[in-house]
Amino acid sequence: MCIRDRSEVEVMADAGIRDILLTSEVAGPGAFDRLVAIAARLPDFKAVVDNAWAVDQIASAARVRRVVVKLLIEIDVLTGRSGVVDSTAALALADLIRATDGVELVGLHGYAGHAQVQPEAVRRERNDPAMALLADVVETLREHGHEIPVLTGGGTGTASMDAQRGLLTELQAGSFLLMDVAYRNAGAPFENALFCRSTIISRPTPERAVCDAGQKTLTADSGPAEVIGRPGVRYLRGSDEHGSLVVEPVALEDDLAVGDVIQLIPSHVCTTINLHDVLVGVRDGRVEVVWPVATRGHVW
Amino acid sequence: MCIRDRSEVEVMADAGIRDILLTSEVAGPGAFDRLVAIAARLPDFKAVVDNAWAVDQIASAARVRRVVVKLLIEIDVLTGRSGVVDSTAALALADLIRATDGVELVGLHGYAGHAQVQPEAVRRERNDPAMALLADVVETLREHGHEIPVLTGGGTGTASMDAQRGLLTELQAGSFLLMDVAYRNAGAPFENALFCRSTIISRPTPERAVCDAGQKTLTADSGPAEVIGRPGVRYLRGSDEHGSLVVEPVALEDDLAVGDVIQLIPSHVCTTINLHDVLVGVRDGRVEVVWPVATRGHVW
Repeated sequence: MCIRDRSEVEVMADAGIRDILLTSEVAGPGAFDRLVAIAARLPDFKAVVDNAWAVDQIASAARVRRVVVKLLIEIDVLTGRSGVVDSTAALALADLIRATDGVELVGLHGYAGHAQVQPEAVRRERNDPAMALLADVVETLREHGHEIPVLTGGGTGTASMDAQRGLLTELQAGSFLLMDVAYRNAGAPFENALFCRSTIISRPTPERAVCDAGQKTLTADSGPAEVIGRPGVRYLRGSDEHGSLVVEPVALEDDLAVGDVIQLIPSHVCTTINLHDVLVGVRDGRVEVVWPVATRGHVW
Repeated sequence: MCIRDRSEVEVMADAGIRDILLTSEVAGPGAFDRLVAIAARLPDFKAVVDNAWAVDQIASAARVRRVVVKLLIEIDVLTGRSGVVDSTAALALADLIRATDGVELVGLHGYAGHAQVQPEAVRRERNDPAMALLADVVETLREHGHEIPVLTGGGTGTASMDAQRGLLTELQAGSFLLMDVAYRNAGAPFENALFCRSTIISRPTPERAVCDAGQKTLTADSGPAEVIGRPGVRYLRGSDEHGSLVVEPVALEDDLAVGDVIQLIPSHVCTTINLHDVLVGVRDGRVEVVWPVATRGHVW
């Protein structure tokens, strides 16, 4: 399982998940000790690194605890965020890891985030050079005697093309499970399973309605939520606690009224779930399960 | 105290706050009963309404509990969200409230949200007609024999001009207490008191750095957070768990390194606090208090 936040890893470990890859670098007071404590607890735990200082810090802490921490070098596959930017830097880091007790290189992490939530043509246009760069780095490293068994990356947007290419040994698709408006609009071939119920609290004019799901209920970082089952009723924008809806001309005959409950598809599954304490599992109109969002707010 | 969410009102009542105005309409299963239960518990509680159905529902529930619920009519002072849109609709609702047992009209609520986080000229340009409309409505209502002791609205952005105008009897300024980038950039004359500490976790190129505060730590609905004390280091954008920083040419000599802790001012105080479980109170470099964010996630 891929997890971005160190404190989320601890929640998952407590819940019995054993094989975890922490896909963000860590740093700061106590960070490396905590990371190595997780590695001591979970033999299959893996962490990513993109700089020599982190390798040294992890290795020092690992030697104190007498464990060997499995590392993946993060490659910036043209996303423009973290990760080493070329095969020279990757090779230097791989050589350092080989020369350092307490750490072991097991693979490369190359997440093409910029290729995920995009129309299919853009996904391919961005993913092809990203994966070519990753292939180039792994080739360089293998030429220098580094075994690279794990190549991990990809996501819900590029899952099909990554599977076809056959380069990655692990796919980091996650959003496919619940989906959202952004991935749906980008053509990801999965069903939406995450919905938000909200109540109409104001109906000031025929063209306008207000529901009680605002930015504290539905994030807007990936665009507005989508109203389902009410053609012509459109979620325009959220303020802190209000959702402003436009009732388009086609829906002026709609009997949308104060007190009505509407169903929305959140635009971004990750940040929206992070706002809530529970997910309610419904099948055939009945609540079957209530899941706590155990990792909500675990960002330290 | 003005509160937007019904379930936040319950948290505040539990904490001993007595004089509460709920500034959003409510509707939906159980909503009116819960509202009236709060009114039964807090004699100074007030709620807003903008439609006849809500007045009837509140009054019915109030008669069952033998209380009288104090109501304010919400006026849409050109914000374009909830609230009745003219004095005719306001008068009809005021007459209905007068004719209905279990409810009592005590004022008008006219929150000019669209005038708050704006440059000063725009604030004035938007607030003047908003307050003129509110004044017009109150005049109409008084002409028809309605006493309107409470006129509530305004916010951190318009506080000075509202005070000068002298129309409102209550100002709904709240963000001034902690402030954020959006209000600061709009020229609100208050000091920033809310900061986010974050650690640099990646430094892939001289022009680029990544910190561990992304959209699950800092919302971006009002623009990016601001890095303080590091001239030329700019928070560009957040992904779920990463903050992408630009190191501008002026700061290329800055020794910003992996492991460094930076301080950020959140762009939007309301939605950012809502992501966190606690606020840490610091004075002179020492932690003095840790406050739980008791209302986080209370949006139902």
